[in-house]
Amino acid sequence: MKVTVIGLGLIGGSMAMDLRKTGLATRLTGVELNKDHASRALTLGLVDEILAPEKAVPLSDLILVCIPVSAIQQQLKHILDLISGGAVVVDAGSTKSLICAAARDHPKRQQFVAAHPIAGTENSGPEAALEGLFRNKVNIICERELSGKEPLAVAQRVFDTLQMKTTFMDPYEHDKHVAYVSHLSHVSSFLLGQTVLDIEKDEKNIFTLAGSGFASTVRLAKSSPDMWAPIFEQNAGFLQQALEEYIAHLKRFQQCLVNRETDKVRDILTRANDIRRVLSGIELNQEKLPIEDSKATIEK
Amino acid sequence: MKVTVIGLGLIGGSMAMDLRKTGLATRLTGVELNKDHASRALTLGLVDEILAPEKAVPLSDLILVCIPVSAIQQQLKHILDLISGGAVVVDAGSTKSLICAAARDHPKRQQFVAAHPIAGTENSGPEAALEGLFRNKVNIICERELSGKEPLAVAQRVFDTLQMKTTFMDPYEHDKHVAYVSHLSHVSSFLLGQTVLDIEKDEKNIFTLAGSGFASTVRLAKSSPDMWAPIFEQNAGFLQQALEEYIAHLKRFQQCLVNRETDKVRDILTRANDIRRVLSGIELNQEKLPIEDSKATIEK
Repeated sequence: MKVTVIGLGLIGGSMAMDLRKTGLATRLTGVELNKDHASRALTLGLVDEILAPEKAVPLSDLILVCIPVSAIQQQLKHILDLISGGAVVVDAGSTKSLICAAARDHPKRQQFVAAHPIAGTENSGPEAALEGLFRNKVNIICERELSGKEPLAVAQRVFDTLQMKTTFMDPYEHDKHVAYVSHLSHVSSFLLGQTVLDIEKDEKNIFTLAGSGFASTVRLAKSSPDMWAPIFEQNAGFLQQALEEYIAHLKRFQQCLVNRETDKVRDILTRANDIRRVLSGIELNQEKLPIEDSKATIEK
Repeated sequence: MKVTVIGLGLIGGSMAMDLRKTGLATRLTGVELNKDHASRALTLGLVDEILAPEKAVPLSDLILVCIPVSAIQQQLKHILDLISGGAVVVDAGSTKSLICAAARDHPKRQQFVAAHPIAGTENSGPEAALEGLFRNKVNIICERELSGKEPLAVAQRVFDTLQMKTTFMDPYEHDKHVAYVSHLSHVSSFLLGQTVLDIEKDEKNIFTLAGSGFASTVRLAKSSPDMWAPIFEQNAGFLQQALEEYIAHLKRFQQCLVNRETDKVRDILTRANDIRRVLSGIELNQEKLPIEDSKATIEK
């Protein structure tokens, strides 16, 4: 299968690695506007060549769109205009409502599959690409009813090859829930990093006193602003609700501190401990999901 | 050296492991009021015996106090009353002002060393104890000028054995800075966990959509409330200032979302990215610090 990967960063680069290794991609073409990234992706062997989208897309059976969500929204129609025959376009954006809306009235909508493979690290660029990044992780497909049967089967083959578990959601529900369980985590981490940097002007104190707990909590603050600013913009409505809730919780906690209500503080921490059960569930989920399930679901 | 460890959880248990392994402790006695923890600590071989403090402390050369900070504050005078000869008491509390104040006027103040070995995981209890937990981590000693030369040398030998880098701080400065770089991280994580649990009543959505980023950001929310509620209480003054700053940063960010000021959002994220440099500094710090330095400092 001739594959074009648009955007050779962490996500696109990692997909290219696995699709080549498994033999699903017989030829890999990259589209990458950042010249520096393009040349590093070639050096790393992520793709065989770099071409402009107008050259690459019409020659490909599968086009993976792994660029910031604002760029997906802007370029999706143009990419669909460029495909030929039964080629399939799959995006990997972390928001889905505006991207689905951008494709909705396109005559080739059936050839598009709106996906969100939930995987990543705090690193970005071609060097951040990792083999097996998607293994045992969850992939969401939205508006499956607007994708054709064949394009869905192709997308499913890609995500099965990446060893992901695919489930299906409405784009509105997707965006609402990722605001809480993914985007809010990123905001809390970015702003914690910012707060500590602002306060601890003498950085030596951070170096000396910060333990591994601090490093873990601010890890996501290292994430790419070019990727995350557009995600936060596209999901601003739900994210701002989530932030409202988070701030309200922090203020209630702060009030308990002011009032020296240590029993209430202990109650809050004890209830938060319940996240341990949820996190075990996540690990369970990722380790034990039978990949075959997703095939069964799609071929109902 | 006959060593008594008061509190056989993550910190006390891990100290016991390393002190036995290196031969510094020739006999290890545990003091543990929680009967379940006491019997598990014995089963795990963390200590040779469990005794009441009134029996254990007078027979020991070194007493390590690894209980919640509120309990250290309450019991420190009693422990100092119990020691005999030139025995040394070292605490491992994450706050220092109130603990130092509790010991200040005690006739045996010179035999006490106020320490904060900065290491840990989100787990607690005797099973959480780990060999090498403290290796290459930072230890803070406060009010060194109130500890005697010999007791300081004994404490230094303990922390050198644990392979820690020891530095010295004023308790007020210690508490102010750990509020930002440690306690605030824990609060942000506990409350993020709580917020997501409250909103995502249908937990299935958390299981499905949460990636490793969420798990990393809420990891600290699994920490022990019995340990952390007293820390937050003792450091309420500084912590509430830190929370004030954090909430102000979150609100400014939220306002940018409401106003759809994506350039400002990107600026905030880019500045937060600077934490990458700080975190590399932390890693550098932990890997490259020559342990010998701390000896040089203490024997000036």
